[in-house]
Amino acid sequence: MKCTGSIEARDVEEMYINIDPIQAGGRLTPEAHKAVIAYADGYSVCDNCLKPFRLDYIKKPPLAEFHEDCAKWLNMDQLRVVPGARRGFQAVASSMVSKGDPVVLTSLSHYTEFVSVEQSGGIPVEIPLSDDKHITADAAAQKIEEVISKFGRPPALMFVEHVDYQYGHIHDIKGITKAAHQYDVPVLVNGAYTVGIMPVDGKDLGADFLVGSGHKSMAAPAPSGVLAANEEYAEKIFRTTQAKGDVTGRTFGIKEVELMGCTLMGVTVMGLIASFPAVQKRVENWNEEVKHSRIVTDALLSIEGTVCLSKCPREHTLTRINTIDSFDKVAQTHKKRGFFLSGDLKKKGITGMIAGSTRVWKYNTFGLTDNQIEYLAKAFQDVAEENGLVVNRE
Amino acid sequence: MKCTGSIEARDVEEMYINIDPIQAGGRLTPEAHKAVIAYADGYSVCDNCLKPFRLDYIKKPPLAEFHEDCAKWLNMDQLRVVPGARRGFQAVASSMVSKGDPVVLTSLSHYTEFVSVEQSGGIPVEIPLSDDKHITADAAAQKIEEVISKFGRPPALMFVEHVDYQYGHIHDIKGITKAAHQYDVPVLVNGAYTVGIMPVDGKDLGADFLVGSGHKSMAAPAPSGVLAANEEYAEKIFRTTQAKGDVTGRTFGIKEVELMGCTLMGVTVMGLIASFPAVQKRVENWNEEVKHSRIVTDALLSIEGTVCLSKCPREHTLTRINTIDSFDKVAQTHKKRGFFLSGDLKKKGITGMIAGSTRVWKYNTFGLTDNQIEYLAKAFQDVAEENGLVVNRE
Repeated sequence: MKCTGSIEARDVEEMYINIDPIQAGGRLTPEAHKAVIAYADGYSVCDNCLKPFRLDYIKKPPLAEFHEDCAKWLNMDQLRVVPGARRGFQAVASSMVSKGDPVVLTSLSHYTEFVSVEQSGGIPVEIPLSDDKHITADAAAQKIEEVISKFGRPPALMFVEHVDYQYGHIHDIKGITKAAHQYDVPVLVNGAYTVGIMPVDGKDLGADFLVGSGHKSMAAPAPSGVLAANEEYAEKIFRTTQAKGDVTGRTFGIKEVELMGCTLMGVTVMGLIASFPAVQKRVENWNEEVKHSRIVTDALLSIEGTVCLSKCPREHTLTRINTIDSFDKVAQTHKKRGFFLSGDLKKKGITGMIAGSTRVWKYNTFGLTDNQIEYLAKAFQDVAEENGLVVNRE
Repeated sequence: MKCTGSIEARDVEEMYINIDPIQAGGRLTPEAHKAVIAYADGYSVCDNCLKPFRLDYIKKPPLAEFHEDCAKWLNMDQLRVVPGARRGFQAVASSMVSKGDPVVLTSLSHYTEFVSVEQSGGIPVEIPLSDDKHITADAAAQKIEEVISKFGRPPALMFVEHVDYQYGHIHDIKGITKAAHQYDVPVLVNGAYTVGIMPVDGKDLGADFLVGSGHKSMAAPAPSGVLAANEEYAEKIFRTTQAKGDVTGRTFGIKEVELMGCTLMGVTVMGLIASFPAVQKRVENWNEEVKHSRIVTDALLSIEGTVCLSKCPREHTLTRINTIDSFDKVAQTHKKRGFFLSGDLKKKGITGMIAGSTRVWKYNTFGLTDNQIEYLAKAFQDVAEENGLVVNRE
């Protein structure tokens, strides 16, 4: 069905159980859908923009309130909305990193963190993984030592994943920030898979900067996200413009340089705000989400030859699985080759796998109901059995 | 009426004739509204993202096609979507300007252009206005000469407004780019008030970079926009990441540094695409829009004491008006002071003026129907007469 012109209406969330690893937390709430319809127009939140003419001061709709409430909720001093987590990384890197500065990332850092370092002229270096694919405080400290010995100064900034996009592992952020702070290295905590998904306390984590993704984990439209900072660095990354016209003498008030002034003027920020009460509530349900994740992982592990590459029992809903010795064996002789798996799942109403994947792949069970989880777990086992694999059902 | 939680449903476009100077071109088309509903979820356009995993390569929905078609339509070589025109300025400044480089702007440049220069470490200098508030080729050339004499080198970049946000004047871009190119200075043409509003031909204008605003003038949700470039500089501003993990050896493929990889993943880009056929069509109706603008301006000028600060007869729908000797005189003794004007207009179903303004203000008639234009023109005259001002009706 076309929704307009040559554009097919998207019905994924209505018609399927979607286990796409990056889409689970970005599904809109009904409240966000309503706000999206009301505030779809470009500058729709700007009707009541009064002096000093900045997005986060708008009271109606309650943008100012959201900025304050969301900062409090994350236990951070200040917060701004941004067009995606990556634009939060960019703002911090751009203001904290000078050309030639070493910047510590991790072996599990997202490409957008690398890009933000590259753009600022910094030199990225990675913290290695432990044998069980975690970033540890010791490894972080050791990398800082290496940087100091090589560059003669500590790194300008460290990026760490609260939960990484590869394994869905929860890393020892408290230990890592403690280690970094011993060298006075500020730490940006990438909460793209945590803020809006599970409880996050910025101060408890020791985060100097905390970034969340609206469209990844806060049930908001894209591009959206939040960038929070503690007082120590807030003034620097939220600095206001000092530019002055040499002919006109114009100055530009309190517009913030790294945020390019205002950021999310309508549908994106209103979706974020409308979902916020539900998002605050849903993170309290995290134990249930973890339980769901374990049920599905266990079902996959009951298929002989399957190996879970993420730490078990699972502590997050994003999981990396290796089916080289199970589903990929089927793919070797199946007439549809690797496409049989995503195809068979789709027939059962399940989508979100990269079509053709049967070797190493990821899934995310976030936000599914008890019934959907039970159905999904059984569906994996059924597809396996239907294709001649041995399943050790309980 | 609440649309959800504490958020009032926005009904401005349904209930009023909206003459807000920045909102007129960002009102969504019915097609965009449909696409917004279908693609509101975060990563909704990414269902069919295949290798090489970049937004502008996605074929379904037709993102790749839009990138190509929109570039052609603007007669530019390459185009990318961006989260707002300002992020287009940022991408160009960040890649073209080094610390200490002089950058030419104009006395009518938008603050976001200044901010992008400040962020890149450049030094902004302004082209002065002519007596009739235009940027001329001669003034541009003279400013370049001044820069060369002061800095010992030509500016790294020049920003010019195709149509400025202050007066709605159409500037001699062809002449200005010709002058700049004689000094090998690349020119970014800010089409925030032209692309999507009136016909724009990038090559004819001599633009090296052309930026359009989705939420200002392309009937798209915010934040959205387009950044187009010609071949000479496209490789530089759309350069792909060269970053490499020192531990993992990871590289990050064809992700573009200045765009932070992918940009608009759902509702924003789909609104932009869905409106595109209507936008292409509406720019052909520009003469009608100009006629409408003149009708309203003439009505305002029929109110004794009113002065149009924009050049008349109007050539654009954005107009700057001085009512110090008309409406502001009323405000001196009116019990509602300056608020009487926006209040009286609102009673007549007209909104979009800054509440309390009676001195120098702006309005935009873009997109109104014949009947709305007639009604609006008469409403201004009626409010004037009802408040004792003399109106010279034809």
